[in-house]
Amino acid sequence: MQDTHISLAHGNGGRYMRELIEQLFARHLDNPLLNTQLDAARLPVIEGVPMMTTDGFTVQPLEFPGGNIGSLAIHGTVNDLAVAGAQPLYITLNAFIEEGLEIALLDRIIASLAKAAEEAGVAVVAGDTKVLRQGEGGGLYLATTGIGQQITDHLDMQKIKPGDQILVSGPVGDHGTAVMLAREQFGLRGNLISDSASVLPLTRAVINIPGLSFMRDPTRGGLASVMNEVHQATKLGISLQQEYIPINDAVNTVCEMLGYDPLYLACEGRVVAIVDPSDATQVLHAWKQQAAGQQAAIIGQITQQNYVSLKTPLGGERILEELEDDPLPRIC
Amino acid sequence: MQDTHISLAHGNGGRYMRELIEQLFARHLDNPLLNTQLDAARLPVIEGVPMMTTDGFTVQPLEFPGGNIGSLAIHGTVNDLAVAGAQPLYITLNAFIEEGLEIALLDRIIASLAKAAEEAGVAVVAGDTKVLRQGEGGGLYLATTGIGQQITDHLDMQKIKPGDQILVSGPVGDHGTAVMLAREQFGLRGNLISDSASVLPLTRAVINIPGLSFMRDPTRGGLASVMNEVHQATKLGISLQQEYIPINDAVNTVCEMLGYDPLYLACEGRVVAIVDPSDATQVLHAWKQQAAGQQAAIIGQITQQNYVSLKTPLGGERILEELEDDPLPRIC
Repeated sequence: MQDTHISLAHGNGGRYMRELIEQLFARHLDNPLLNTQLDAARLPVIEGVPMMTTDGFTVQPLEFPGGNIGSLAIHGTVNDLAVAGAQPLYITLNAFIEEGLEIALLDRIIASLAKAAEEAGVAVVAGDTKVLRQGEGGGLYLATTGIGQQITDHLDMQKIKPGDQILVSGPVGDHGTAVMLAREQFGLRGNLISDSASVLPLTRAVINIPGLSFMRDPTRGGLASVMNEVHQATKLGISLQQEYIPINDAVNTVCEMLGYDPLYLACEGRVVAIVDPSDATQVLHAWKQQAAGQQAAIIGQITQQNYVSLKTPLGGERILEELEDDPLPRIC
Repeated sequence: MQDTHISLAHGNGGRYMRELIEQLFARHLDNPLLNTQLDAARLPVIEGVPMMTTDGFTVQPLEFPGGNIGSLAIHGTVNDLAVAGAQPLYITLNAFIEEGLEIALLDRIIASLAKAAEEAGVAVVAGDTKVLRQGEGGGLYLATTGIGQQITDHLDMQKIKPGDQILVSGPVGDHGTAVMLAREQFGLRGNLISDSASVLPLTRAVINIPGLSFMRDPTRGGLASVMNEVHQATKLGISLQQEYIPINDAVNTVCEMLGYDPLYLACEGRVVAIVDPSDATQVLHAWKQQAAGQQAAIIGQITQQNYVSLKTPLGGERILEELEDDPLPRIC
């Protein structure tokens, strides 16, 4: 491709679009199932129960310490399938590209997306690109849909009961804080990197533990929002112990300075699990044997209260309300 | 929902987002497979070969005569599966919503999307919404992914051979022209409506005819671009007869006034087919028995030339080049 920036002609169905797809997207994403000449990909037979999920990605800036919108799009979709008890298999990709985007940047992003897909063992089997006029696009938006194969059927939110233990696989708020710092709008800099990663090693390590009833990756809205979703769905209470929740020092520092609560900030490579008390330490130990689970912790339990609360080390209790205002747009 | 317009809080993972999803999206799209509390939808077993496709939608204006971006998103994805020889089954939906979008408009669009899905016999099984800051979104973008079940395996571009007949199921260029008029930037008005529709009745009517080797819906880039794709893939030539190509008078008039070529304008409810000469009239008659196929026609044939050409009634010949410049951004 001779151009350095995306133009409207890259979206019109003609030669420029074909070259962009062939020379950038298909070059990175090449696999036996991806055929850019077909309207639909023909997939191998899916054994058993298919599971399907979809996500949009609008993170700003497009590149941040620890990843970019491309790797994030794969991790987000792979993780939704992983925590739902599925083995991710195939991904489709939509790219909404703003006129004027640097092609070298797009190339880095799609290369990173391809690498993340390969590492997670998924193939990108179909895609579409649209080009938006300058001023109508925000650089780049991605949408990914994933299909996988159910590998366990014992996850069920309705099994959650008082006394169940709540675990998290690692420190919370890294992604949200890293993206915030990457915007440089606060005059802050730091070494913090996003936790964006496939959680498959974490979910595979615990998926067959019978007391496990629920897993979720705490993305938009963070840990506190997942806890509120569980509360909404089960009508049970949740009690978290503040001192047990792993949070990196850099995240705490930035959040204190800017007035954010790390419990509401996005993670992109963590898992929250709810487990019968008899199996909680087994989940904890299984996670701690994983590189990504070194800081895993039991952080609280299900209660019969009608709210989500955080117990402080000094014995106080704070309600973790459902999020109302937006702390941070375009974080994922 | 008490709000009248989308705000950033509708995208943050908290209460406003939940209400938007529950009270607008889930209300219209309700079906037994859609569970907004889960990370991934659990689907019935797919018999045989799954086929998968994806599309982004950016049409402007969001509503146009004959449809809106919601119905268009369903038709586009259903049609890609239909022309590839699959029965569409499940759809995922991503919505990128710009801050400030009127909620009543979004409601009409999602209602229309739900109606189109029901008519095409597909269920929306998973979705995601993101809210973009004002000035970063162009109103609304949608991305849909569809999965279906292959119902024929005899479609194959590599079977196309010289002498094969080329058919179109109805007049070309209606969608592109209708959207262009809806923008009102040319000071023109007309009665023309988009052809946006599911092509399933058309594809089902001919899918078992053995001489059928190829079907495609001529969307972005229009009929001429599909012909160029066939030429690229097969290295065979294509000769179209201008007087046999059905084009509505209103489309011809507008295109003449504005200098567009209707052969390059998008359709969203037409099918192009390539058929062995012995079966061409069977395809034609099967289409003419369908409401949407009244104006179906045999419009040309495959040749041994190395180009795509249009023969005029006066005996002239014009090359239909691959599209270079963009005639019309955000048309689909």
